[in-house]
Amino acid sequence: MTADPAVTDHPIHPLLATRWSPRAFTPTPVTSEQLISLLEAARWAPSGGNVQPWSFVVVPRDDAAAFARLLGSLAEGNRVWAQHAPLLLLAVAQQERQPGTPNPYALYDLGQAVASLTVQATALGLRVHQMGGFDPEQARAAFAVPADYAPVTVLAVGAQGDPTALPEPLRGRELAARTRKPLDSFVFGDTWGHPLALLADMAQAG
Amino acid sequence: MTADPAVTDHPIHPLLATRWSPRAFTPTPVTSEQLISLLEAARWAPSGGNVQPWSFVVVPRDDAAAFARLLGSLAEGNRVWAQHAPLLLLAVAQQERQPGTPNPYALYDLGQAVASLTVQATALGLRVHQMGGFDPEQARAAFAVPADYAPVTVLAVGAQGDPTALPEPLRGRELAARTRKPLDSFVFGDTWGHPLALLADMAQAG
Repeated sequence: MTADPAVTDHPIHPLLATRWSPRAFTPTPVTSEQLISLLEAARWAPSGGNVQPWSFVVVPRDDAAAFARLLGSLAEGNRVWAQHAPLLLLAVAQQERQPGTPNPYALYDLGQAVASLTVQATALGLRVHQMGGFDPEQARAAFAVPADYAPVTVLAVGAQGDPTALPEPLRGRELAARTRKPLDSFVFGDTWGHPLALLADMAQAG
Repeated sequence: MTADPAVTDHPIHPLLATRWSPRAFTPTPVTSEQLISLLEAARWAPSGGNVQPWSFVVVPRDDAAAFARLLGSLAEGNRVWAQHAPLLLLAVAQQERQPGTPNPYALYDLGQAVASLTVQATALGLRVHQMGGFDPEQARAAFAVPADYAPVTVLAVGAQGDPTALPEPLRGRELAARTRKPLDSFVFGDTWGHPLALLADMAQAG
């Protein structure tokens, strides 16, 4: 079962249009081959100075003790559905390029690595739902993450489940239309706040 | 002309394996249709709370005055090649969810949006080279970026040019092998620093 692709205003690649963050996952485990490809995709993301400031702790549901530890760090609103995902990943940013020198691109580049991983997941028929709703310090303690590394997100990974089987209010959220701001609210030409001529022309042509 | 794909240790989707950040671009302009698809791809990236904390200032080379302003903010080592790219984008993060409330995912989510844009670029036969080497305050002044928004990267976009036409030392860098840390240096199982059993098994099977 897959969700409908995003209703985009302009054409984008199917791997981007069909990407989606569900709350319903099937229990089918992510295979070793799939997992390795997800991590390899993250590995080849670009990063400032090729520093590659990302790390991942891999927590399959089959590893019951570790899974319970990571699940315990999640906000209740996430735990209620994420407990059924076959795989959780803790995504961690290395905050310094070297001791005492902060890396201003650590979070940005981790975001890029996770986005690459998500493209690969979509290509493999899997879904990724990223969560910021967790306690980073609890996750740090649970997995012995060093002080100069920041737990940033927890990713639930698996094949999409049946949205209609979710309890409310998750079901309603799962079935709600996907929305984004219009392009002309965040794309500017020439200077900030000035519309890109191209977008203004398209709006006029309407 | 396209670069060789990354020599990956495990299979990843061609849109990720062939992504690359060149310094040589052809002068061929990015078309309106291509530009709109790049921005639409960024638009549909995921973000914490669907806040979409990204903005882009679009600066084609044909817009000589604006192009010179953005080029002027670049570090010399980037300006020397980026001046030939047909399109520059200033990528900006909205740092607050609402006035006084910082968004801890602003940079992370901007990174995801740029990664999505880059996948779309690759699908269209274009290349993106992200630069952190620029003066954010000079770019802010040049494009009137508000105080609560952070200029984070400048993206050079276009079709890949001939690496052998670059002057040294750019030519050498352009032709150098692409490298990444091994997976087992940043992927952990069970707890930090413990190898993922799967990777350990593969190394043994080696």
